[in-house]
Amino acid sequence: MVQAEPPSRPVPRKAEPGPSPPAPPATEEGEGATETLGRRSIELAGFYHGKIETVPSVPIRSLEDFALWYTPGIAAVSRAIEAAPERSFDLTGRWNTIAIVTDGSRVLGLGNVGPEASLPVMEGKAMLFRYLGGVNAIPVPVRINSPGELIETVERIAPGFGGINLEDIASPKCFEVLETLQERLPIPVWHDDQLGTAASTVAGLLNGLELTGRSIGQIRTVLLGAGAANLVTARLLVTLGHDPHAISLVDQRGILHAERDDMDELMLRNPWKYRLALQTNGGGRVGELADALRGADVLLAASRPDPHAVSADVIRTMADDPIVFALANPVPEIWPDVARRAGVAVVATGRSDFPNQVNNSLIFPAVFRGVLDARARSINDEIVLAAARELAARAHDRGLTAEHLLPTMEEREVFPHVAAAVATAAVDAGVARVTRSRAEFLAIAQDRMSRPARLIEAIGRSGLIAPMPPSTPLPSPSKP
Amino acid sequence: MVQAEPPSRPVPRKAEPGPSPPAPPATEEGEGATETLGRRSIELAGFYHGKIETVPSVPIRSLEDFALWYTPGIAAVSRAIEAAPERSFDLTGRWNTIAIVTDGSRVLGLGNVGPEASLPVMEGKAMLFRYLGGVNAIPVPVRINSPGELIETVERIAPGFGGINLEDIASPKCFEVLETLQERLPIPVWHDDQLGTAASTVAGLLNGLELTGRSIGQIRTVLLGAGAANLVTARLLVTLGHDPHAISLVDQRGILHAERDDMDELMLRNPWKYRLALQTNGGGRVGELADALRGADVLLAASRPDPHAVSADVIRTMADDPIVFALANPVPEIWPDVARRAGVAVVATGRSDFPNQVNNSLIFPAVFRGVLDARARSINDEIVLAAARELAARAHDRGLTAEHLLPTMEEREVFPHVAAAVATAAVDAGVARVTRSRAEFLAIAQDRMSRPARLIEAIGRSGLIAPMPPSTPLPSPSKP
Repeated sequence: MVQAEPPSRPVPRKAEPGPSPPAPPATEEGEGATETLGRRSIELAGFYHGKIETVPSVPIRSLEDFALWYTPGIAAVSRAIEAAPERSFDLTGRWNTIAIVTDGSRVLGLGNVGPEASLPVMEGKAMLFRYLGGVNAIPVPVRINSPGELIETVERIAPGFGGINLEDIASPKCFEVLETLQERLPIPVWHDDQLGTAASTVAGLLNGLELTGRSIGQIRTVLLGAGAANLVTARLLVTLGHDPHAISLVDQRGILHAERDDMDELMLRNPWKYRLALQTNGGGRVGELADALRGADVLLAASRPDPHAVSADVIRTMADDPIVFALANPVPEIWPDVARRAGVAVVATGRSDFPNQVNNSLIFPAVFRGVLDARARSINDEIVLAAARELAARAHDRGLTAEHLLPTMEEREVFPHVAAAVATAAVDAGVARVTRSRAEFLAIAQDRMSRPARLIEAIGRSGLIAPMPPSTPLPSPSKP
Repeated sequence: MVQAEPPSRPVPRKAEPGPSPPAPPATEEGEGATETLGRRSIELAGFYHGKIETVPSVPIRSLEDFALWYTPGIAAVSRAIEAAPERSFDLTGRWNTIAIVTDGSRVLGLGNVGPEASLPVMEGKAMLFRYLGGVNAIPVPVRINSPGELIETVERIAPGFGGINLEDIASPKCFEVLETLQERLPIPVWHDDQLGTAASTVAGLLNGLELTGRSIGQIRTVLLGAGAANLVTARLLVTLGHDPHAISLVDQRGILHAERDDMDELMLRNPWKYRLALQTNGGGRVGELADALRGADVLLAASRPDPHAVSADVIRTMADDPIVFALANPVPEIWPDVARRAGVAVVATGRSDFPNQVNNSLIFPAVFRGVLDARARSINDEIVLAAARELAARAHDRGLTAEHLLPTMEEREVFPHVAAAVATAAVDAGVARVTRSRAEFLAIAQDRMSRPARLIEAIGRSGLIAPMPPSTPLPSPSKP
């Protein structure tokens, strides 16, 4: 996303499952719907006081069983792991447990709200990890003062986890933190705002190219917004064979190219963006978004919620049958119907109430299911691309069309396939601790991804979770 | 415990629920039983691959509900906590979630096995916290190089937790870590090896005094072992009115007194032990355990597993009707029947297969239930003593006798009372964020402590947890 001034009101940044507020005009009405949702979320948060809890995953027949699960029996398990620390993946829950780590520096669209205020968001993410991926995810918001402290803290807590999901960390520090941890830790480290969003974007784009008869080696692409997601998307596109000189990155100051007057500052402050500026050199363009879009095949916008950020007029200057992803949330950079009327062949947004939702939730649960099932030592771009390719391929199962560019969140049968593709890619990359066939990984993922729903059903039947209380009625304006 | 040479084989140090190996002679047979348990624990660890998992604690009717539990609704919850961070105790699961933090430096009797090898033990502890206390406890083994790094790491992760349970950290660094974190964090910090063991010991002692018609202001007490537990026990005894000059601390070098030739070294290396040495000055004695015990009313032994560490002969030199706690695990410092034949009126051990088990599991689940229910900012010795006193008082419910010194782990109805006493003590100490009557705290604790059993029953009925597999038969010695 473009790292611009923080918006003056809460603007969720990421695409996630669930309804978005009603479509255009998303002016006061749309914001009213978001505010109603927010009020209800606070009401429910104060009713349930938390969204996840722990339960034993082994039988407890009586207190006597603790002689096996705890002292004295457990000492032998400790000794076995002391002798061979890798056995912690077999003899404990480490293989299926990840930490969701944030410093609270860029939570949703809210900016730097700090670790306590990030906790409800991390709890929601933990629920998604569990519900969609069968992964035990533990929120670990941390109070730190520098990227170095964040790196150090994650390194210290890593022995208890099979993977690390970094979340809602401001750019550009998120790049340094991710790269350093990926180098140092023997477990997969993922930053969803970079990798999850980029992978789902790439998946959608692959299908958009297929639908419009293009090949990635021959397209011109404009990325609007040069934040965590788009910088990684650009990198993945180049890995897939996109000519870097046919990519124009555009931020709030216009096209990013080697001669722009903020390059020296960028080199120091954001070397990741700087390197891409050099590598793409504006796709041979200078100027504004309009200059970049002329004749372009693809626009991937991940900038700020503003339905007028991209006008129909500039869209009309693109190549025939262009592809436009307008991914800002909750309001895309151009409304889909406006884009279509301007000639766009394939439109995607981050919202579930339009066709073609590009959504990191299509990716991260399956990626973690896959790397955990392979007990992977790391994650690399090939593994990320395996997830994107499999997600794209699975759109064909129900028919690939301009209105069904990607599987939806409801197509739950898709995700074990993505997990199996990821696990297989980890084996192929030589980073897996466990080697199995793709069919075996698929069966494992299907079992593990369906378990939470069965658990939830069992707990639901017990009556141990109170039904949602009715909404508090709004105060009547007629009463003082 | 006495910080002596690490034993050459696994010797669980702490009393916990569940069967201990069969009673005397605990020589090779007893060790054989422990080894069988250990083999079975490894087998089960490899079958279940972990002992706890997470589940949603809110209804999920469909993916659409994530609009409330996650984006976009959750942004409003974040904003509410950003404006008032204390609301994290109300709007998230923080109020009922603690971290079990260890550096793996003194795991059970195994010594410094490191963080990975500590994980199965922390998982077992997390199960106990959940099963007995209704507390969500997250294992967080950390890889650190100094007490300062451990303190710093816990400070950084604290925003996500309502309490911290330090576990299996070597003495004396455990004292520095606990004290510093208690000063710095706005949540209760507990080190079970200090506070849990000391509180259950004090509870037992209070009843032992009642049974033998003694008052704490008039007794002479010997503590054998000067590790984490006994140093805190000594401190609590003084707080309760015990004359410090009637306390003899004995370690592997004999009675600890102000003139002992290692005092300078102790001052530097273990100021906590040093201060108690000055304060008690050996109870006016110098020499060995035998010198300390002459005429003493009470022996509290928490040293090394060795049934001959305390002989019947020295016991006979104690005052009439003495009280002897022999708490080393799995083998007490003197067998109970030997002690009784030597004239001891009240004997306690750490084992569940003898009467009078002194066990930190009688304390820690209820203490955390109580401080969490009061949303306490801290924990102090008065709160610890409130737990000890309530536990002691509850022994009367089924009749206080020399064979029923304390409630057993099976007397589950006791623990909500201890939790309510703790919560009330937190209110009285002015550290509670929530004020309720003791009866209200009791009702809350009863509900929250019974929930896990109901959850476990619901999950158990679902068939989602495989029954325990049969034990693998031992390899037959007749086959090569």
